Amino acid sequence: MVNVAVLGYGTVGSGIVEVIKTNQELINKRVGDELNIKYVLDLREFPGDIIENILVHDYDVILNDPEVNIVAEAMGGVEPAYTFAKKAIESGKNFCTSNKELVAKHGPELVELAKKNSVNFLFEASVGGGIPIIRPINESLTPDDVVEVVGILNGTTNYILTKMAKEGSDFDTVLRRAQELGYAEKNPEADVEGYDACRKIAILASLVTGKYVDFEDITTEGITKITDVDFKYAAVLGLSIKIFGKFKVKDGKYFAQVCPVMIDKSHPLYSVEDVKNGILVRGNMVGDVMFYGSGAGKLPTASAVVSDIIEEARHLNETINIIWSDEKLNLSDIKDSECRFFVRVKNTDKDAIEGNFGEVEFINLGEIDDEIGFITRSMSEETFAQIAEKMDNIITRIRVEG
Amino acid sequence: MVNVAVLGYGTVGSGIVEVIKTNQELINKRVGDELNIKYVLDLREFPGDIIENILVHDYDVILNDPEVNIVAEAMGGVEPAYTFAKKAIESGKNFCTSNKELVAKHGPELVELAKKNSVNFLFEASVGGGIPIIRPINESLTPDDVVEVVGILNGTTNYILTKMAKEGSDFDTVLRRAQELGYAEKNPEADVEGYDACRKIAILASLVTGKYVDFEDITTEGITKITDVDFKYAAVLGLSIKIFGKFKVKDGKYFAQVCPVMIDKSHPLYSVEDVKNGILVRGNMVGDVMFYGSGAGKLPTASAVVSDIIEEARHLNETINIIWSDEKLNLSDIKDSECRFFVRVKNTDKDAIEGNFGEVEFINLGEIDDEIGFITRSMSEETFAQIAEKMDNIITRIRVEG
Repeated sequence: MVNVAVLGYGTVGSGIVEVIKTNQELINKRVGDELNIKYVLDLREFPGDIIENILVHDYDVILNDPEVNIVAEAMGGVEPAYTFAKKAIESGKNFCTSNKELVAKHGPELVELAKKNSVNFLFEASVGGGIPIIRPINESLTPDDVVEVVGILNGTTNYILTKMAKEGSDFDTVLRRAQELGYAEKNPEADVEGYDACRKIAILASLVTGKYVDFEDITTEGITKITDVDFKYAAVLGLSIKIFGKFKVKDGKYFAQVCPVMIDKSHPLYSVEDVKNGILVRGNMVGDVMFYGSGAGKLPTASAVVSDIIEEARHLNETINIIWSDEKLNLSDIKDSECRFFVRVKNTDKDAIEGNFGEVEFINLGEIDDEIGFITRSMSEETFAQIAEKMDNIITRIRVEG
Repeated sequence: MVNVAVLGYGTVGSGIVEVIKTNQELINKRVGDELNIKYVLDLREFPGDIIENILVHDYDVILNDPEVNIVAEAMGGVEPAYTFAKKAIESGKNFCTSNKELVAKHGPELVELAKKNSVNFLFEASVGGGIPIIRPINESLTPDDVVEVVGILNGTTNYILTKMAKEGSDFDTVLRRAQELGYAEKNPEADVEGYDACRKIAILASLVTGKYVDFEDITTEGITKITDVDFKYAAVLGLSIKIFGKFKVKDGKYFAQVCPVMIDKSHPLYSVEDVKNGILVRGNMVGDVMFYGSGAGKLPTASAVVSDIIEEARHLNETINIIWSDEKLNLSDIKDSECRFFVRVKNTDKDAIEGNFGEVEFINLGEIDDEIGFITRSMSEETFAQIAEKMDNIITRIRVEG
């Protein structure tokens, strides 16, 4: 029998219990042993719940029980998750987590600590919800020099952008509805400002390079400035507006960024809608590979955690290969990164625009009098910023990918 | 040092050498040891080629060299690949292959034999070319009861269908061009008749159930009867015509089929075009997960083989978990499978059609006088066949998914 303790009985934690209970027989077969949930840790009480009798409030009960082989954490936040992870691993227990804050902050240290203790620290659910992406990077895309990773990594913002595109509503209206439906938090900052996607692209960039990409180094821009008017232009152009987490290797330089982008129909992530996530990985041998699925939600995320539990149950005292050194990857300043820009300016004329930006592609929206929209040629962020500083009438700009 | 022998120096075999040589340093780091290509086996000579000095013509040289840890096969066909695989594994060597005929025919036996000998038999490249799909099924989707797998599994036919859709050309014209470009074989039967996709869906269905799905039990229909007129109807309907390998569990029954299908924009495989492949897996917990990438081609396929080589190099004397018993999975007769049908009939009227099929959705193509196109309600294959037998004027029918 393999014994599991689940930390946190919120959405993901209760999902872990539900996945294991629902597919118990099949999971036992795949583990090659019985997988038993021995404890659930939560500060709250759950009278009448199926975990009532295995609920504990004190982490030491789990830590001091030598029968517990695997600790699965679904509490979120850096503390006490970090302390709990260290203690579990140092006690010779396997640890897995859906907690992107923990992984983005302490990933290399916990991977290394697990190796020292001949156990595992796994985190499939920390990026892309139910989508298999961490293990494919660590165990399948290994022959490749990965030169680019771009992903729609946050379900909440993708839901908001999809609704804005389809319904023509403005940001605040859609956000309010998303909150009512439970797709957005009451405090939506981590999602809509891109902080969540930032941690996720930091984790992916770390794993494809084997080094530590500090999420605090990543230039991050959310979607709060995207308006219904931007979507009118996008519709005319046949483009879709998404928020990407991006990592790119170019001429030996590394760039990472979170920002809204416009993409066309030929982009593999073009039709990733609603709360779905999609991650495109470009290798120098395999070319483009894309992974798609539910980026959030109770059961998909729990399924990813349970896949880690199963892998750990199959390798209780043997560390599965993950290359993630604590050597920091130096990201280049985003000012050297190049792309085209979609721009809206007010109270000006086409000559003045081309006088500043050179030749551009004007977009005929045909309904707004006092502004002009256009797409620039490819230029660096720095060049764009310099031009923008000279003009004082830029309403907005969105990067155009591809 | 980990020593590899490559069997076959054709497209994939030479790709394996190229992938390893190109990314040698990175691959060594990921293996944790030097990965060395010690032999290449081929009947031909390759004077001046980089493998000239490691080329052998006699398999026994490889078999009898105790330094060879891994044999990677890229010859294709059941024999001599099967004999070579057995001998390698019985000699305590790991084996991996891109050969779907070998895997579909002898998979369970070779997996079992590898387990007995504490080595590995891996076959990531046998389905989906460079797309990670075998390992994600075996190691990531493990918490899930997989209830459906549908895939665009053959690059050649997807290329042909994409060109027919975009250019309005007929099948023979596009096939001829695909042959000229090297996207289709001189004898295109295995691709265009669906035999290749049939073996691939048999492998996927086997792995998600853990049993043996015999490809010879799978009802298989190719794309040779699809015409430019079918694409005109599809365009009016906003549908795309693809050839799917399908596996589905419904009410405890298992169905597998290869056939052309019409799908709409909301289907995750709708925009998989040209030689790309896409595979959608539906689990009872994770929901829909989709994998996309190059389904064929030298370097993508070779990258998948090298990912197996790297996993084997990391687990030289330890069998990675693959559940694939030789117990045969009994597929249900496809006559009980249900879907809607797109149908074209000639020389009849709408009343006669609805007299036979009940209420249908007529399609107004507006340019062909003597035929009527329509989509039926959902019905079993058997019901459809019975109605079709009564009528003698059906030109064609294509299944409609979703």
